[in-house]
Amino acid sequence: PNLMLDAIGTTIFTVMSALATQHGAINLGQGFPDTDGPQDVIDAAAAALRDGRNQYPPLTGVAELREAVAAANHRFYGITVDPATEVVVTSGATEAITASLMALLNPGDEAVLIEPLYDTYLPVVRMLGATARLVRLNPPDWQLPRAELEAAFGPKTKLLLLNSPMNPTGKVFSADDLAFIAALLTRHDCYAVCDEVYEHLIFDGLKHTPLMSLPGMRERCLRIGSAGKTFSLTGWKIGYVTAPARLATLVARAHQNLTFTTPPNLQRAVAIGLAKDDAYFAAMGTDLAAKRDILAAGLRDIGFIVLPSSGSYFITTDFTPLGFEGDDVAFCRHITEHAGVAAIPVSAFYPADAPTHYARFAFCKRETVLREAIDRLSRHF
Amino acid sequence: PNLMLDAIGTTIFTVMSALATQHGAINLGQGFPDTDGPQDVIDAAAAALRDGRNQYPPLTGVAELREAVAAANHRFYGITVDPATEVVVTSGATEAITASLMALLNPGDEAVLIEPLYDTYLPVVRMLGATARLVRLNPPDWQLPRAELEAAFGPKTKLLLLNSPMNPTGKVFSADDLAFIAALLTRHDCYAVCDEVYEHLIFDGLKHTPLMSLPGMRERCLRIGSAGKTFSLTGWKIGYVTAPARLATLVARAHQNLTFTTPPNLQRAVAIGLAKDDAYFAAMGTDLAAKRDILAAGLRDIGFIVLPSSGSYFITTDFTPLGFEGDDVAFCRHITEHAGVAAIPVSAFYPADAPTHYARFAFCKRETVLREAIDRLSRHF
Ligand SMILES: CSCCC(=O)C(=O)O
Ligand SMILES: CSCCC(=O)C(=O)O
Repeated sequence: PNLMLDAIGTTIFTVMSALATQHGAINLGQGFPDTDGPQDVIDAAAAALRDGRNQYPPLTGVAELREAVAAANHRFYGITVDPATEVVVTSGATEAITASLMALLNPGDEAVLIEPLYDTYLPVVRMLGATARLVRLNPPDWQLPRAELEAAFGPKTKLLLLNSPMNPTGKVFSADDLAFIAALLTRHDCYAVCDEVYEHLIFDGLKHTPLMSLPGMRERCLRIGSAGKTFSLTGWKIGYVTAPARLATLVARAHQNLTFTTPPNLQRAVAIGLAKDDAYFAAMGTDLAAKRDILAAGLRDIGFIVLPSSGSYFITTDFTPLGFEGDDVAFCRHITEHAGVAAIPVSAFYPADAPTHYARFAFCKRETVLREAIDRLSRHF
Repeated sequence: PNLMLDAIGTTIFTVMSALATQHGAINLGQGFPDTDGPQDVIDAAAAALRDGRNQYPPLTGVAELREAVAAANHRFYGITVDPATEVVVTSGATEAITASLMALLNPGDEAVLIEPLYDTYLPVVRMLGATARLVRLNPPDWQLPRAELEAAFGPKTKLLLLNSPMNPTGKVFSADDLAFIAALLTRHDCYAVCDEVYEHLIFDGLKHTPLMSLPGMRERCLRIGSAGKTFSLTGWKIGYVTAPARLATLVARAHQNLTFTTPPNLQRAVAIGLAKDDAYFAAMGTDLAAKRDILAAGLRDIGFIVLPSSGSYFITTDFTPLGFEGDDVAFCRHITEHAGVAAIPVSAFYPADAPTHYARFAFCKRETVLREAIDRLSRHF
């Protein structure tokens, strides 16, 4: 059996969700909304099942979704792409990330990853025989250490993997950060795999800026979006990669060996979702920000230090003031089992030498659920 | 960009389907039925979209589908498995194969593959840093050369990949073949990844025997099934792996880095499909065998040598008697463009030194479509 997979363990998201179920805990761990997305999108998926188009769709996705992704790139970010050659639909953003890494990395290449990092990045880089160079954001403000980032680039660097808005930190990389990164990529002739699944889940009047929209970055970026996150339908597993044609072709080659195609009825429904008016997309951010505020205030009242979150489903908290003895894994297990609220230990986002006093809470839940979670935690602490 | 992906090219199935569309050809190339599967299964998928369960299902699949897969293993083959720990649902059999190879192969390991082979096997083995040992079936009867198979096993062999019923040959490995293979696996302490996607598409009174059902093989086999093939819904991309718990755990670890989960509404519908009565499964074979006979007779009348097919969607033909000058790729392009019927060159199933006088035709199409294809080819030759 594979030694690397034997070493990595079941993803923390699954482990904590199972523990939450076992203890009847409110699950503020794994990031998924507790209310399904737009009824018209769901109805479109059901209707599309019934018109006899349930066989293999095209390898790169159904035309209507590729066109909708191209249109969204232009509408939201002014990025012009050819839907026929520069968009690849995948079975979720996880596959999109893996396929993008497969498209770029050869054995011996180096990939720059930013900690804290999502738990699929590193095992996939290693599976491909490439080496990760890790650069760590500094908590609690998660500033990008520019000198360290610069030092991580060298002659073997093939790509940077950038997640903004970022899981678990809620960081939105600033215009200055992005310009600095763009300059590095140009200087070292590198690519960026841009995990932008939370692109529409962004708060406080901020606007998401894809790295791809910066000067010179159009040909260097593979930009990844997620229908699950954008439409609160995380089970649908529809992702999309936007990339220059030469790279999109390679992503499609990887996709053909991973899943080959993605269910056509769900693709067609997502195409309808992406055509929704601006109000829909704006409301995603406004609604989530209100939930963030409720949860953040409640946790602060209990004694947590709540770190700022400008995007994503998540807030990171420092539980030191609660006087808990033990690390973040113990803390998250403890509150799941004894307070009836599950969270994710942030150390799971570090391969080694992790900080162990942070817990991540998801706020993409109904207000009543968030308030009940706060009540449970208040009663416990 | 990745050198290996750059080298492999877009899958022949996509290339020939695109050419068929471009020329208005009847597509007997890529293997998919032209009629969607059971209405009750489709209706179940539509209904399941509407009851608020559109978020991430469990990593290894929804309980009802894991239970249905376990029940089908027992009902059809007498294999007893624990649905909680020995079944992993994947986003199609392609992902199941890739995840199974990831679960077993370390860099430097050897995998025994049997030619002709499906076009994802070899690139995935190589991506994992493993080495393929190729053993070639001898056309036109596709006998397994036992001495060569035996010689391919050595101290580094980790697994054999076995596809039965086999694409493109339609070969169903005999009980003797399977017993020979089982002995080899035991002797060399190896695993088998069993691509059994055509398990219910089997003809002439033959019954599919999973290698896993042989004595001693329960702990060595990862058995892969496909809802797309079993229910004529190839776009749904629901696959499943049945494996001993220790290996199933590793398949799930691979799955978490490839797609993480699979759409829950489609999973729930497939669970209903797997509970259909024996008549449904028997009819799949009977109906397809009748289509095979129509196409085989028509092609034989035109002058093709038609090789026997005992299972799958496919027949292989030798087009030498037609006097065509050129190889199988040229032949398949030629008939697509000039006769209006697409087929797949069998050389695409060989990484090197391929026979070049075979074309594969899919017969999983309506009778009128098959007859029209025969007419078109008759008029041309
Ligand atoms: C794919 S697992 C859960 C979703 C997620 O991205 C998270 O919780 O961080
Ligand atoms: C996944 S591509 C098409 C289906 C198939 O298995 C084939 O045509 O051989």
